[in-house]
Order: sequence, then structure tokens, then C-alpha cells
Amino acid sequence: MKITKVRHASAPLASRMSNAIINFAAMTTNVVAVETDMVRNGEPVIGYGFSSNGRYAQPGLLASRFLPRLDEADPASLLDETGENFSPQAIWAALMSNEKPGGHGERSYCIGALDMAVWDIHAKIAEQPLWKILSERYNNGAYDDKVLVYPGGGYYNPGKDIETLRGEMRGYREQGYKICKMKVGAVPLGEDMARIEAAIDELGSGENLAIDVNGGFSLEQAVEFGKAIEPLGLAWYEEPGDPLDYHLNAELIQTYPHAIATGENLFSHQDMNNLLRFGGMRSETDWLQPDPSLCYGLTENLVMLDEAARLGWSRRRFLPHGGHQIGLNMAAGLQLGGTETYPGVFQPYGGFADDTPVVDGYVTLPADQPGIGLELKPKLMDEICKQLEMA
Amino acid sequence: MKITKVRHASAPLASRMSNAIINFAAMTTNVVAVETDMVRNGEPVIGYGFSSNGRYAQPGLLASRFLPRLDEADPASLLDETGENFSPQAIWAALMSNEKPGGHGERSYCIGALDMAVWDIHAKIAEQPLWKILSERYNNGAYDDKVLVYPGGGYYNPGKDIETLRGEMRGYREQGYKICKMKVGAVPLGEDMARIEAAIDELGSGENLAIDVNGGFSLEQAVEFGKAIEPLGLAWYEEPGDPLDYHLNAELIQTYPHAIATGENLFSHQDMNNLLRFGGMRSETDWLQPDPSLCYGLTENLVMLDEAARLGWSRRRFLPHGGHQIGLNMAAGLQLGGTETYPGVFQPYGGFADDTPVVDGYVTLPADQPGIGLELKPKLMDEICKQLEMA
Repeated sequence: MKITKVRHASAPLASRMSNAIINFAAMTTNVVAVETDMVRNGEPVIGYGFSSNGRYAQPGLLASRFLPRLDEADPASLLDETGENFSPQAIWAALMSNEKPGGHGERSYCIGALDMAVWDIHAKIAEQPLWKILSERYNNGAYDDKVLVYPGGGYYNPGKDIETLRGEMRGYREQGYKICKMKVGAVPLGEDMARIEAAIDELGSGENLAIDVNGGFSLEQAVEFGKAIEPLGLAWYEEPGDPLDYHLNAELIQTYPHAIATGENLFSHQDMNNLLRFGGMRSETDWLQPDPSLCYGLTENLVMLDEAARLGWSRRRFLPHGGHQIGLNMAAGLQLGGTETYPGVFQPYGGFADDTPVVDGYVTLPADQPGIGLELKPKLMDEICKQLEMA
Repeated sequence: MKITKVRHASAPLASRMSNAIINFAAMTTNVVAVETDMVRNGEPVIGYGFSSNGRYAQPGLLASRFLPRLDEADPASLLDETGENFSPQAIWAALMSNEKPGGHGERSYCIGALDMAVWDIHAKIAEQPLWKILSERYNNGAYDDKVLVYPGGGYYNPGKDIETLRGEMRGYREQGYKICKMKVGAVPLGEDMARIEAAIDELGSGENLAIDVNGGFSLEQAVEFGKAIEPLGLAWYEEPGDPLDYHLNAELIQTYPHAIATGENLFSHQDMNNLLRFGGMRSETDWLQPDPSLCYGLTENLVMLDEAARLGWSRRRFLPHGGHQIGLNMAAGLQLGGTETYPGVFQPYGGFADDTPVVDGYVTLPADQPGIGLELKPKLMDEICKQLEMA
């Protein structure tokens, strides 16, 4: 029982939009397929994975560093205690051998893509949807049969005016979403306030709108913006300052009573621990948004959730960034607070299974697809197979 | 006036040794040469750079992401205010365009190598040694004419016994070093204590020995080890726990009165700020060891030093990790506390100019070599040129 081949590619994830910090014109993501000698329903078991949006692919790191370690590992050392399935934790440890601590970026994205594929394989061999495995193994069998989802949207595009933003938000409402998110911080405060008020007008109330600065504000700007939006009672105020500036975050929270959300740019449990210890985050109010495919995968996310629990944080305060089906599996099986999605952008990677309806801001889970369920999104599978030159 | 070509390669940096966390059997480093159309002394000005030890090369990131940004930048936008030299800061900003905040690893190592080459070019065009430029521009003209250096050694090698360790330490003393460093944490406490006592015996006193855990201890282990070494009055106790575990560091310092040193695995000024704000570090006692070629280069290090000064830290508390000539230039021109060196390992990258004598733990600076001074180390230049297939 072994991994027989790993395909990988740097796939384009380009678009014309921007947030407060970057544009996405040259964006790429890692795409991987991990092939095994196991067979289910007459087909070889293959796991698929990809990194998230907003970063870039690392094909060189995969080829020169991580995949050789998989090749060199004794196949028996990569199995779980039953000997009948792969152990995601053992594979993760093999990938990370001879890596120094610290420096959590880039390598964490390519390992995140591989780890997604490994969990896909694990669940396919077990003939279970991943959320069910997570529920049974890490959540005493409990799970949610519907998951709060919110579209990450409201980007700045060239020529995009307030009417277009209104149309976008109206579209999300018509698709069944309740809480929607938009980007702020790239234009003067007054202009952003007009955009925010227009979005609220479409969404019915401030509590249906989250705003996202993508780390663009200084402390002074963050406080000023916070004072301006405070009366609106927004769903949350996301990544106001540099993601590693815990001091800024803690100071801002002294002045802003409503929810802050952050964490998508923290890529290890050590960094998340620091946010929780030093960032002033309130376990009853605020939201944590690590990206399961950027922070070394679900395997590291499970460590992160355990560490957060030790620091007094419920899993309900976690909202995985990235809009992947793995985030949806985690939210359901581990009973997180919900998960982001991208119905309008980062296609075909964004969003869930094609037949997943959104009702009053929630999605239900397709119950019977073994694995992560990427096969329920044929356009995504077509793109992955095209990038990897698979038949 | 422009950059005409950038060569880069992944160069082997392999050896048989280990620290508490990793072995170095498959280690690589980025090597770069940045060619320009400027001429000095009848030769085209070329800058050379490399990453540090302990991490790996990122040739794919250089080729696919960072070098295209240099190609695409308007050459005039990469010059300083005189228009007669390149601006390291402008080049750094071009390299980092469309990069999200957070995730400081890997990309920081390849930008560190490029940034070293850019500062080498800048100083060569100015026909000054780099330390002199740093002194004049960032230190009101003050500089040190001798710099404290300490060898990073005492690794675990297969078959290396206490006699071999003694011989290594004796060798450093004979070469003129005073403070020497050895690795600990990979064997049981009693065994390490015997190694430490043997090293102290060779070095004359505990204050001549620093020990380095490379982040391997839990809080409990770090405290236990600290209690065992406390009576020895060592020069410092380096990286006891995970480099991002500021809580561990702060708790340990409550129990350990002598100097702690850390920071070689923090790769941004944001991470260093967090260590200074939350890690319990004492500005009169402890040492900070960022690696100028791993943390996005000297350019980011200058920001780091300024931020640390705002938090009350003198530059004298900085001891650059990595044993490069750029660390020596920084220590002299910016009047840091000293710098690490590797007379015995990581050759030919480790160590300084071939003719640099070490006297009572200090080196003096060669005064008249424009640039970083890599040319004063012919074996290093031969290796770089071989790796880059330069004549």
C-alpha cells in the first residue's frame, strides 16, 4: 500500500481585481494529484488538492524538497495504526523532516495542497465523506447538517462603481446568502463609507455586512475607520492591520466594541497562539480565520484548534478562509462557526458542489460522496486534470 | 543604467552534522549574481549574494515570481535620488509588489540573497566598502574598527565524542576566538552537561561559552536545562524553545537570570517586534540574532533596527546570525554587538576574508575593498562562479 505518483502544477488563478494591498493579475496556485495503489469501486484512489488564493504556487519547492522526502520514506511508515489507510499525520511529519522551526510561509502553502490530497485519499479509502471522518475522530460523532457560509466579494475592479457593487451584493442575496463581505481600505474613507452604505442598503442591515482591509491600515487608520463604522454594527471588521501586528490589533480592540476577524495570514499554530495570547482577541466576540490549505493543511489546523481550545477558544469562533470544500467539511464535521466561499471569484476553485443550495445563509452537505467532494464540482475537476495533464 | 542580467542557482551546502532539530545532509542555498551596465575600473559591476545556512534554496520562486518583477520594473524607478546608483529600497519594493503581508519564510530567503547582491552593487558603484556606506548613511559616520565574532560550532556529528568537541573548541581558541558556541538539546541532559563542562574547560570559563538549542525544548525542558546551566554563567542560552513561542521565552526568562539569545528564525520586522513586545526579552541582558540574508536582506534589517530602537533596544544587542561578510559589514558600520561566523562549517560561505586575523575574539575590517568584500574570499568566489556557470 503506497503512494505511486504525485503530479503537481502551478495553475493560473488570475483576475483583474484588487484589494487594499495587492492585485491578482499574476496569481497562481499549487494543484496536486496524489496517486495510490489502492482501489475503490474498481478505480485507483487518487487524492486532489490545491493551495488557496492570494498567494502563489511553489512548484520548485514541491519538486526539489517535499516530494523527494515522500519518495524516500518507507511506505509502511506512512500508514495509520490500522495499516489499512494512510496517516495524514505521518505523511505530514515526513514532508516536514529536516525543516527548521519558524519561517511559516510558502512551504506551508505547498504542504497545504499535498495535505488536502492526502485527506481526500484517506476519506476515499475509508469510503466516507471527510466531514464524517472528522466528526467521528475529532468531535465525538457530532456534526452540523448545515453550515453558515459567506461570500468573500466586493473587490475593487477597474471601472467598478457603486452600482456594480450594489448589483453584486443583490446577486449574493438572490443566491441565498445572508452575510456578505466586501473589501475596503484602498480608497479614501468617505468613498469607502459610501460603498459600505450602499452594500448595507442591499443587504438589509449592517449585521449582514463584513468588511475586509487585508491588513492595509496603520493603527491610527484602523482606529479612525473603526470609529466611522461603529454605528453601523457590522458583522465584523476583518484584518484591519498587518496580520502579525498583535499590538495594533489589541490596541484597536480597546476602541472598537464590535467583532474583529483575523488570522487568514497566520500559517502555523504558533502564530495563531500568539494572536490569541497577545492580540487582544475576545473569545465571545471575535472571529479566527486560518486558511486550511495555506497553513500546512487540515493536519496543522487540527493542532491549531486544540491549542486554541487550551487557550479558552471554542471551535465556533473559527471561520476558515479560502472558500474550499475542505473548509466546508471542517466546518460541518468539527462544528466550526462557518466558512467563507467565493461564488463570484477564483473560479473554478471557489465555492462548493454545483448542486449545493444556499438557504438563508447556510449550505447543507452532500452526504454520500467519499473524500472531500471535489468530484461534485466537475468544472474544478476538469481544470485540475487539465493542469496536471491527466486523462 | 540598469540591471542587465540576474543569474541564480541552488547550491549545495551539505554536511554530515546535526543540531537538536535537523540534519544538514540535503541542505542548499540560493546563490545569485546581479549584472549591471555600470563599469568601475574597466569591469562591469556585478553584485553577488547568497542565502544563509539551515534553510533551502528557492530557485523556482526567483525564476517565476521575483525576477520577472525586476524585468518589468521601469529601470529609472530602481535608482536612488541621485540617479547615479541603484536604490536597494526601491528594488526591494519592486520585488515585493503584489505580495500579501504575513507568511515570512522562503520568499524572505531568496529576496535576502538578491538584496545582498544589490547592496554589493550599490557599494561597488559608490567605490566604498559597504560598512562605510552604512556608517555614513545610517550611523552618523560612526563605526567600529574591530568587531566581536564568535564561531557557531559544536555540532553533533556521527561518531563525534567529547574529545573531538574539546579539540574543536581548542582549535577556535588557537585561531583567536574568545566566545564560542556549541549545540545542545539533542542528547539527554547529563550527556549535554558533560559536553558543556568539557567545552568550558577548554575555553577557560563559562562566560566564553554560548549554547544553542535551535528551538528544540518545551517550556519544561527549557526551564530544567536553564536550572542546570545557571551556575555556569554562560555567555548566553540560545533559542531554547520554538522561535515563535514568545510565551515560552517570557516564562523561561522569569526563571533564568543570565542572557538569552534568539531571533535567527524571525524573518520580518513584524516578528521581531513581537519578540520584543511579548517575549520577555531584557534590553540590558539579552541578544537578538536576525539573519540578514534570511530576513529579506539588509534592507529589511535596517527597518528592524529602527523598529527595535523605538521599543528601547540599542543596536549593540544585535548579533547577526549566519556568519556572512554582510553581517560583519553591518556590525562594523552600524555598531552592532558583533556577528556570528563559521570557521569550521558551511564552507566556503562561512567566515570572512582569508586574511582577516582574529585577535582576542575580535576581527578588524579590510578597509579598501569596495562592496561587501566577497572578492576577499577567493574560494567563495570560485564556488559562486562555478554554481552560476560564470567564466
